[in-house]
Amino acid sequence: MKLIRFGEASKEKPGILIGDKRYDVSSIVSDYNEAFFEGNGLESLEVALKNNPTLPEVDASVRLGSPVARPSKIICIGLNYVDHCKETNAPIPVEPIIFFKSTTALCGPNDDVIIPKNSNKTDWEIELVFIIGKKASYVEEAEAMDYVAGYCLHNDYSERAFQLELGGQWCKGKGCDTFAPLGPFMATKDEIADVDNLSMWLTVNGIKYQNSNTSNLVFKIPFLVHYLSQFMTLLPGDIISTGTPPGVGLGIKPDPIYLKAGDVVELGMEGLGTSKQVAVAYSK
Amino acid sequence: MKLIRFGEASKEKPGILIGDKRYDVSSIVSDYNEAFFEGNGLESLEVALKNNPTLPEVDASVRLGSPVARPSKIICIGLNYVDHCKETNAPIPVEPIIFFKSTTALCGPNDDVIIPKNSNKTDWEIELVFIIGKKASYVEEAEAMDYVAGYCLHNDYSERAFQLELGGQWCKGKGCDTFAPLGPFMATKDEIADVDNLSMWLTVNGIKYQNSNTSNLVFKIPFLVHYLSQFMTLLPGDIISTGTPPGVGLGIKPDPIYLKAGDVVELGMEGLGTSKQVAVAYSK
Repeated sequence: MKLIRFGEASKEKPGILIGDKRYDVSSIVSDYNEAFFEGNGLESLEVALKNNPTLPEVDASVRLGSPVARPSKIICIGLNYVDHCKETNAPIPVEPIIFFKSTTALCGPNDDVIIPKNSNKTDWEIELVFIIGKKASYVEEAEAMDYVAGYCLHNDYSERAFQLELGGQWCKGKGCDTFAPLGPFMATKDEIADVDNLSMWLTVNGIKYQNSNTSNLVFKIPFLVHYLSQFMTLLPGDIISTGTPPGVGLGIKPDPIYLKAGDVVELGMEGLGTSKQVAVAYSK
Repeated sequence: MKLIRFGEASKEKPGILIGDKRYDVSSIVSDYNEAFFEGNGLESLEVALKNNPTLPEVDASVRLGSPVARPSKIICIGLNYVDHCKETNAPIPVEPIIFFKSTTALCGPNDDVIIPKNSNKTDWEIELVFIIGKKASYVEEAEAMDYVAGYCLHNDYSERAFQLELGGQWCKGKGCDTFAPLGPFMATKDEIADVDNLSMWLTVNGIKYQNSNTSNLVFKIPFLVHYLSQFMTLLPGDIISTGTPPGVGLGIKPDPIYLKAGDVVELGMEGLGTSKQVAVAYSK
């Protein structure tokens, strides 16, 4: 299945995507949130859909929200692409680097990305996300995929001055509002034949900056589930973003390039659709 | 008011503390969560209580949970005590150091603290917490206290090897289950005459290790609300932990001291009560 959430921000309803048609399933489930995943909502929804219920079609013009509701956490993995390590001459990390993104950053796949007040270094990062399907604590790597519900496309927007120049940890530059456009949809595991071989690309104003494949991931999903679950309990619906390949604005030679109002960022991943964000200046 | 939550873990009900008696207010409010604070729940509860409703008393033997329900985020401030900076010869930070604690770490004030698997360096940190009362984005320092609902006692447990020796950011050592015992209660702002002058102490097995006062805070609450709200939206019910004074296990000379199973940690802060955690080994 391909799960979507549609409608006005913070009032989204659950839906599904079949081909390129969208259907409202709010008569069957209330939302794609922690309770949904925890209560075997995916299986129940699949069973319900097999009875061919009459589902209202949702117009293609309706806004898409994040395909999963605000979770308990968004965890990101840093420096997790072999090609990115090579490009920057950084050693391949011995253990995953992890950090949190504020869950208030979550938004729809095609929402505007708001350049924060006082920001000069808003940057992009295409990433493969996986969604936790059930409570995970001290999970063995061999069983880890049982804890994964599905996958999404994510753009892990990052303000590099906030992240790297203000002292301390990275979270200042990762959690700004609209810095986590997710989707267009969550693909359940069965939709993706080989998650370790998905091509991906990102363009800014039509120029391709990122172009890689999940085959370049240093730490793959089963190990990440295992590893993270040694340090904290992962909850159903939690979002784990697996890191970005080369080609972010910060890494461009001779000078970094950052987003300015009006720039158009488009990205896509094999099997996980495409998204598009227009950069706008913060205004109150 | 002094808000408590009582009962079995993850099934807590809301209550209030009057003197040393506890009362069940679940007939008036459903929980102390984001919706409660967002919907002016504190004011409504205060009004309801003025009508002297008959409230069931809750026995002193009943477990206390975290006085606020799981929020969207727990943000912590690092190295925020003048006396701690002096002790360690660290310069006073120019800007607050911030990091996230996984919200799954939240637990009751007197719950056991579980020493994680493979941990040898589980440490304590007494901290003053403030709770956000309404949505805060780009807040001016002069108005910041309007966004604060109240205060709690917190022990920001930290696994120092996970935090500092595994590469990258601090979150690996901060978010383990039971690493955020909060309470015993949340004091509303009016209960605390001067939040910048609260004495605090922490003992392990009866030996005093931390002994300071919130007057030593480098960055005080109004500035922290202002500062954090430049980087992300703070939501009602969010927990901000303001940093710890000297005397953590990591800083003990000549050798650091860490918790082992059976150790008893007790802490208290003027006006915010006391809490007690017994360290236990992880077992499944």
